[in-house]
Amino acid sequence: MTDRLPEGELSALATAALEGLGASPRDAADCARILVLADLFGLSTHGVSRIASYGERVDLGGIDAKAAIGVEVASPAIVRVDGANGLGPVVGMRALEAAMARARETGVGIAFARASNHFGPISPYGYLAAEAGFATMIGSNATTTIAPWGGGDARLGNSPLGFGVPQPGGPPFLLDMAMSVVARAKIRGAAARGEAIPPTWATDAAGRPTTDPKAALEGFLLPIGGHKGYGLALVVDLLAGLLSGASYLTHVSSWSADPEKPQDLGHFFLAIDTRVLGTPEWLAARLADFRAILHASPPADPAAPVVVPGEIELGRMARYRAEGVPVAKADLEAMRAYAARR
Amino acid sequence: MTDRLPEGELSALATAALEGLGASPRDAADCARILVLADLFGLSTHGVSRIASYGERVDLGGIDAKAAIGVEVASPAIVRVDGANGLGPVVGMRALEAAMARARETGVGIAFARASNHFGPISPYGYLAAEAGFATMIGSNATTTIAPWGGGDARLGNSPLGFGVPQPGGPPFLLDMAMSVVARAKIRGAAARGEAIPPTWATDAAGRPTTDPKAALEGFLLPIGGHKGYGLALVVDLLAGLLSGASYLTHVSSWSADPEKPQDLGHFFLAIDTRVLGTPEWLAARLADFRAILHASPPADPAAPVVVPGEIELGRMARYRAEGVPVAKADLEAMRAYAARR
Repeated sequence: MTDRLPEGELSALATAALEGLGASPRDAADCARILVLADLFGLSTHGVSRIASYGERVDLGGIDAKAAIGVEVASPAIVRVDGANGLGPVVGMRALEAAMARARETGVGIAFARASNHFGPISPYGYLAAEAGFATMIGSNATTTIAPWGGGDARLGNSPLGFGVPQPGGPPFLLDMAMSVVARAKIRGAAARGEAIPPTWATDAAGRPTTDPKAALEGFLLPIGGHKGYGLALVVDLLAGLLSGASYLTHVSSWSADPEKPQDLGHFFLAIDTRVLGTPEWLAARLADFRAILHASPPADPAAPVVVPGEIELGRMARYRAEGVPVAKADLEAMRAYAARR
Repeated sequence: MTDRLPEGELSALATAALEGLGASPRDAADCARILVLADLFGLSTHGVSRIASYGERVDLGGIDAKAAIGVEVASPAIVRVDGANGLGPVVGMRALEAAMARARETGVGIAFARASNHFGPISPYGYLAAEAGFATMIGSNATTTIAPWGGGDARLGNSPLGFGVPQPGGPPFLLDMAMSVVARAKIRGAAARGEAIPPTWATDAAGRPTTDPKAALEGFLLPIGGHKGYGLALVVDLLAGLLSGASYLTHVSSWSADPEKPQDLGHFFLAIDTRVLGTPEWLAARLADFRAILHASPPADPAAPVVVPGEIELGRMARYRAEGVPVAKADLEAMRAYAARR
């Protein structure tokens, strides 16, 4: 049940829907930009499909679509952003812009954002920054769904972390990952098929690794590399939540359990102006060489050549720009209903 | 075959050995500081045991212990460090100091170092920075030992990445990790015992995951989380090697195959002045709460309570400071022989 829309039409509809929820034209356009890029990258679970859930929380008073987001320059390279419980992608865009503005002045900028909400996937921010010449490291904390390594209850989020590096005139390097080995949907699939899962995917409810997908669905996702991914997830929360002044770990309010309450999520956006390090030509040549070295590795499976992070998403974007962006009919209906409120 | 030495005695011996290799008193003391901290943290494979191999390369002309390291402020928040093929930990200390100096001015500093060598483990740098109030992200590239995800030959290093966050008056958060699921030594152990290994640890020589430890020793270590750890290892090389102006991927010269050649390794040191974000009291209270939340998770194994990264290493440091630092007799002999050259 999917339609295909030209990018411009989808952007206009998403913007109208967000305006219908109360966002200003500028905020609505910026939020739509992130979500439509997510759909162009094929990340449809983090794209315009989110507008329906953002709208539910706006209607419950859990998100303020009219929020006046505060941006305070705390030092030449550090900005503190008060999200004021606004739409996450709007907070994210203000933070990204502020980090890039600092980096233009000093070479490096970090924006620490608090009082925010779900800000979409990371790769759209990394893409926009790379197009402007900035390398980025971006992260957010999240509702707690993961147990500490060796622990038996959920105390940290499956926090996303992403990186971007521009290849001037070419496709940027884009990495966007959560800290779990797999998404919960993969375990649900194994349970439906009655298959065992590897013991590295999840624990049971007591925190013990399990190969039983049903026990795993009662338990917790395991982080990549065990204690290593646990440590990385903590780093993301330290930067995004603790240092930003936002909530962290179990202090983060649950979107699904308490949709009417502000989550007080935190994000961080680090931007590096690559022009301080060399010319665009220098950087383009090095990235192209870097990519070529990786592509030249003989594939273990001849049908699956080596790819560099970002290539799959940017390939989808080119295809969807030519063929239209697939969007679920239900999501289109939700957006049209919100847009009709304007 | 291990002796225990008081920290001061070990530091003096390591410094004397490095002076015997030609390093200035200041460079020798800084290099010894990193390596002795590694031993205090229990990271003996990256501690004073490295001085013997540094010395072999100095004697072959592969490392210049007298190198004049260059530090150039490229923008208010960015420093470029020319390691001039010096001892890695000396290059590392100059880069860390430069990143912290920039962060004192602007809130954030990054030092990009090129023309360097093995710089020891990361947690000693993170510890020193945290004691001075700085949060850090530090990484280095390395000789290529890992295949690209889905590839069939070694094209990237098992690059280390580390993070530190100060808890003023208390123990800092310290994470220091390489990107492989396990170290090669664990596979050697399984081979010696004739045991199978999990298919997530390594591939055979053609890049196919294997449970046979002998085939794995002919093949490549696998990164944590498969494509995720592959992506993270690339990020470390992009920051440490490509953006720094150092070599990257297969351009990095092999320490073991070509010990007489400069490796041209690269590192990056990001420092954030936490005092821009809040008072030391504010930060200490938040870190203590963060730690307490994690410790309070009911352990899956009652004999193994949850730990926060850094606690094991800092616990060893306290013990070794009281009881003496364990060092292999062979390493002591090597250091004494170099020290006698002064």
